[in-house]
Amino acid sequence: MGRILNFASGPAMLPLPVLEKAREEMLDYRGSGMSVMEMSHRGRIFDGIIKAAEANLRQLLGISDDYAVLFLPGGASQQFALVPLNLAIPGRAADFVDTGHWAGKARREAEIVGPVRVAWSGREANYLAAPRPADPAFAPDASYAYLCSNETIGGVRIAEFPRPPSPLVADMSSDLLSRAVEVDRFGLIFAGAQKNLGPSGLGVVIIRRDLAARAPDSLNLFFRYRTHIPEPSLYNTPNTWAVYIFKLITDWVADRGGVPALEETNEAKAELLYRRLDSSPFWRPLAQKDSRSRMNVTWRLANPELEDKFVREAKAAGMDGLKGHRSVGGLRASVYNAFPLEGVGVLVDFMGDFEKRNG
Amino acid sequence: MGRILNFASGPAMLPLPVLEKAREEMLDYRGSGMSVMEMSHRGRIFDGIIKAAEANLRQLLGISDDYAVLFLPGGASQQFALVPLNLAIPGRAADFVDTGHWAGKARREAEIVGPVRVAWSGREANYLAAPRPADPAFAPDASYAYLCSNETIGGVRIAEFPRPPSPLVADMSSDLLSRAVEVDRFGLIFAGAQKNLGPSGLGVVIIRRDLAARAPDSLNLFFRYRTHIPEPSLYNTPNTWAVYIFKLITDWVADRGGVPALEETNEAKAELLYRRLDSSPFWRPLAQKDSRSRMNVTWRLANPELEDKFVREAKAAGMDGLKGHRSVGGLRASVYNAFPLEGVGVLVDFMGDFEKRNG
Repeated sequence: MGRILNFASGPAMLPLPVLEKAREEMLDYRGSGMSVMEMSHRGRIFDGIIKAAEANLRQLLGISDDYAVLFLPGGASQQFALVPLNLAIPGRAADFVDTGHWAGKARREAEIVGPVRVAWSGREANYLAAPRPADPAFAPDASYAYLCSNETIGGVRIAEFPRPPSPLVADMSSDLLSRAVEVDRFGLIFAGAQKNLGPSGLGVVIIRRDLAARAPDSLNLFFRYRTHIPEPSLYNTPNTWAVYIFKLITDWVADRGGVPALEETNEAKAELLYRRLDSSPFWRPLAQKDSRSRMNVTWRLANPELEDKFVREAKAAGMDGLKGHRSVGGLRASVYNAFPLEGVGVLVDFMGDFEKRNG
Repeated sequence: MGRILNFASGPAMLPLPVLEKAREEMLDYRGSGMSVMEMSHRGRIFDGIIKAAEANLRQLLGISDDYAVLFLPGGASQQFALVPLNLAIPGRAADFVDTGHWAGKARREAEIVGPVRVAWSGREANYLAAPRPADPAFAPDASYAYLCSNETIGGVRIAEFPRPPSPLVADMSSDLLSRAVEVDRFGLIFAGAQKNLGPSGLGVVIIRRDLAARAPDSLNLFFRYRTHIPEPSLYNTPNTWAVYIFKLITDWVADRGGVPALEETNEAKAELLYRRLDSSPFWRPLAQKDSRSRMNVTWRLANPELEDKFVREAKAAGMDGLKGHRSVGGLRASVYNAFPLEGVGVLVDFMGDFEKRNG
């Protein structure tokens, strides 16, 4: 058993106790005589799992009954299409906050459905900045206002959320459950599971029930959020394995003290890393200070020729996934909920040593 | 460890060696130091897994390079919408073979997209019959012709496939890899994985490349098959866990002698059950003889009041999932690839004993 420190941007590290539990229950889920993968999604046992998964999320985020919680196929990419298909109002534009790659991908899908306005853009800042609450110029009559709370590639996050006049839609794929969030300020929150919530192939959607009614009858039944609400997430066979892992992960989050406790640890992890990056001109942190992500810390080296060496030596020391996204280059440490504080300590020590040897 | 005989209609029993392998590799996939759920879908290791998964399917079914193989989110329900969205030609109808619940669900999605013709219907036979090849009245100018090869609820299958003048689309969710199939007679074959192919949350699509070009530009990028073809199934993060289990299952199928060997076993399993059902008027097999499914065997008891007792006593004897679908009642034994011949023997013996005690 040689588990490594996995800094991958997603799919990403899962809590070890969750993997151990999944291993233990693989052949026989709690005396049922079968794996969770083998059981009917309409049976009593899986019903207990999916209800507990939903209850856990409601409890952890304080989600009121004004909102439905759905477990849908695919990750964020599927939601990029479903959001405009369900929420666009004919003749009105959707407002987009253009923070980078993920908001851009969502915008391209929205543009296929209807008109889009850019309420704020980080393009001139090379997508290394995120807006403050008052920065975006939202339209009063937009169908909805869209943002991505954390961009994994640039490594920027929206620290405080704006209050647009139209329903706020947020892609929280990379920071849901990592920070406190007032759900009732949003019309819809979605997240692909594979960063903080579970394995890939699961989209978690929190939608204000009245918004779900917007979906036009011309939209396929399967793609309407409202189809999935009455018998939550069981209109079709959901990704039962991912729902099960999500349930184990949200149990783990609760055991650790819930979102506030994890947020504190996440702040500590990010602070450790940024302190190192700010400590010497050897390092070039990428994101603007007020926009720094707590989940994806991005940087370059003053001497970019050392970057490959850094990745190689880190890997040899048991740290994987540190290469930056090909579109920005450099280095990236993704430190989602499941990534331990001690692991960040190991990286920071390695960085100090690397600087000594190469600075 | 008390594994039961699981007759569930899907999600369903998986091969025990596959579960054991998944358990063994849960914390550390072959020395990588991480679970398959934790690794980047763009990394070297997962690339090997998804390429092997595709190669396995191509090998087992003899799929030529004229076809793309895709691993997409969701199961059959998502494909019910994607098929008409991608393949409907404006001004032309789609031909549907109406064999029951699943073909009907697909048809309702197709009707939202464009006109639909019913080329054949099993409605008057209470959906307990399937068509012979010459039965459906296909139109020469249809966009495509659609059928479901095996209906899990009635327990009927299309034994021999028709040759419509338009591209043939088949939902093979419940019998792909259980029987020989000439892929080049089809324009598109899809299957939700959770019967013969893996866990839920994965749609396997085999599409003739020229057909993928039909998708209109008004369709969202994510919902076009052609978006997913160039970098197969990695336009977004696929359900990596399900692709991994699919790979292990297709390895297992190959080890067992491939589709012909499994088909032989499946014929033997079904024959055992149908022979028992035909042996006395105590049993009332549901599907017409020439339409009987090899995957889902459905029946009632001459005395329906005994059906609950049958389910209860079977469960006490270690056999679960035998209750028929609520829409037809009675009993159902789903015996997909992973269900062992010996397990069918246990059921058939139990049935003999039950008849003696209650006949």
